[in-house]
Amino acid sequence: MKTLPLDLGERSYPIHIGSGLLGQADMLKKHVTGSRVAIVTNETVAPLYLAKVRGHLGALQPLEVILPDGEQYKTLEVLNRIFDALLTARCDRRTTVIALGGGVIGDMAGFAAASYQRGVPFIQVPTTLLSQVDSSVGGKTGVNHPLGKNMIGAFYQPRAVIIDTDTLNTLPDRELASGLAEVIKYGLIRDPEFFAWLETNLDKLLARDPEALAYAIHRSCRNKAEVVAADERESGVRATLNLGHTFGHAIETGLGYGAWLHGEAIAAGMAMAADLSRRLGWLKAAETARIEKLIRRARLPVRAPGSLSPARFLELMAVDKKVLDGRLRLVLLKHLGEAVVTDECPRAELEATLASMREAA
Amino acid sequence: MKTLPLDLGERSYPIHIGSGLLGQADMLKKHVTGSRVAIVTNETVAPLYLAKVRGHLGALQPLEVILPDGEQYKTLEVLNRIFDALLTARCDRRTTVIALGGGVIGDMAGFAAASYQRGVPFIQVPTTLLSQVDSSVGGKTGVNHPLGKNMIGAFYQPRAVIIDTDTLNTLPDRELASGLAEVIKYGLIRDPEFFAWLETNLDKLLARDPEALAYAIHRSCRNKAEVVAADERESGVRATLNLGHTFGHAIETGLGYGAWLHGEAIAAGMAMAADLSRRLGWLKAAETARIEKLIRRARLPVRAPGSLSPARFLELMAVDKKVLDGRLRLVLLKHLGEAVVTDECPRAELEATLASMREAA
Repeated sequence: MKTLPLDLGERSYPIHIGSGLLGQADMLKKHVTGSRVAIVTNETVAPLYLAKVRGHLGALQPLEVILPDGEQYKTLEVLNRIFDALLTARCDRRTTVIALGGGVIGDMAGFAAASYQRGVPFIQVPTTLLSQVDSSVGGKTGVNHPLGKNMIGAFYQPRAVIIDTDTLNTLPDRELASGLAEVIKYGLIRDPEFFAWLETNLDKLLARDPEALAYAIHRSCRNKAEVVAADERESGVRATLNLGHTFGHAIETGLGYGAWLHGEAIAAGMAMAADLSRRLGWLKAAETARIEKLIRRARLPVRAPGSLSPARFLELMAVDKKVLDGRLRLVLLKHLGEAVVTDECPRAELEATLASMREAA
Repeated sequence: MKTLPLDLGERSYPIHIGSGLLGQADMLKKHVTGSRVAIVTNETVAPLYLAKVRGHLGALQPLEVILPDGEQYKTLEVLNRIFDALLTARCDRRTTVIALGGGVIGDMAGFAAASYQRGVPFIQVPTTLLSQVDSSVGGKTGVNHPLGKNMIGAFYQPRAVIIDTDTLNTLPDRELASGLAEVIKYGLIRDPEFFAWLETNLDKLLARDPEALAYAIHRSCRNKAEVVAADERESGVRATLNLGHTFGHAIETGLGYGAWLHGEAIAAGMAMAADLSRRLGWLKAAETARIEKLIRRARLPVRAPGSLSPARFLELMAVDKKVLDGRLRLVLLKHLGEAVVTDECPRAELEATLASMREAA
């Protein structure tokens, strides 16, 4: 097991990464402070890992909250089911909420923990590659709204993140690929060496080589932890983690949540951001080609869906959280391995990217 | 105008108290940072003060969100209307939310501000005595759940609290009395001099003497600000502000939100806490008599509703946020002017209070 610290003063916490962590009796229990525990998970993950997690918490008689699986259920209504369950079971404010699942479960259970009685402790146990390398680390929690993704939520840090890499053995290929989108992102925005490593080792990751996966997860979490420690509430550098997300969120909202996986939308969004960066003279054509090639090799899309017209796309982008005072702020690439946040992207270049970077309708 | 500081490090803010503040052109605008403003208010307050507030913010083209009036609307569903409005108007994360109204509006607009895009600035403009002396100060925000009051929310501090004491001129008598419950509370828990002042000056407050009201508001806010500065997230002394609230919340939840006003339920709750404190040998009978007398003079109830049986009352108290690890924590009075939080109240004494301190059914 390796442990990375996320340094946030009194809100600091450890990220444990290793094989078989869910099989270790004390792994979860040592981070529980009160006398009660509520495990929030979904219908897909529950049959796979709930018994294992419950087993080590027996004396605490954990409450189990099992939600439907999918981004389309990341809503205020489904969130309320967690509150219903906690209140019906009379959970008090020392109850620890454990998020067992992917990004949707982590975001919802985290927001429930942030809001229940104005805040109870919680622990992230991410079981998908995407949540292990991205959403479980850094304290972003929330739900979607029909008019925009993650529009309602809180910055709320967990007490610990416990990543058992063995959970990837049961992950569908499409979900694995989705997680690779965020892995590639770290290479693009701040870690060009890692990008090169990914070019060399992508096939191992796709073949689920345990060592390669553990290395990629650790390096991704380290990148994320460094950025979050420097800017917890996204007033500066943390925004670079959103590379591809303004485009990607438009795709997810435009198609309806759950049609494309989050990582798929981000993958296409990163290819679009790279294309736009090239049009602004920042990236060379050879670099955008390398980026596209790596994303494609990860079995991820590099074009927006043809069903979204450029006009509709612009409309969807206008409600993104990255919009400030009416100006569209975008994360783009100054170089391969260096991201910038800009609100001065000329409209013509943006429209050229939207027009050219889409699949045939 | 007087200004009290609430000292919370980087989250510090001023509490402005005075006559005619809403008529001052810069009062609100100086606390707005971004280029957009959303005013959240209700159907009762809007006709009285919305035009005045809007007038000084004209250039910012404020979005107006007008909610129904009443505690029964302090729900997740009504909260979502605020999100709908903000998203439909494409408000970004630099939008400042202004809460214009009583405690329900302040709590809901505050929680909306805490959660919208994971947090936007907000300003409290309380227009009822209760919200001026209590709920607008200190950052507690949230909504009710059918199974418990204020069960879903956040600690989220405003940028400023602006108390125009003239707004009390339009306040119904019953609402004024409801606010006096929280005013009396400060005397009971930490300010015996103020309690004595209230015994002398209560009739002036009921007659809406502007000087007496301004004094009572200022002294209440100073008490609240001192307690919150010492313990923002209620891990210790802040809990004493909940005197009467465990009993009071049980009344509000048991009768259905809106049947009794919050201050009415708290008034009965404080009388019950005083009775229980006497049974434990902490208060003298003469002191509980003084307390009951002052509450009665404020035209507030000193008994729980007869329709709630002691058994039902206990059940309702068990889901209160003040319950920790299954033990009932209560705020009681060690002396008149000194509160304590205890989880060691013998059940027999509690049941004796519940049995004796209720109206005939």
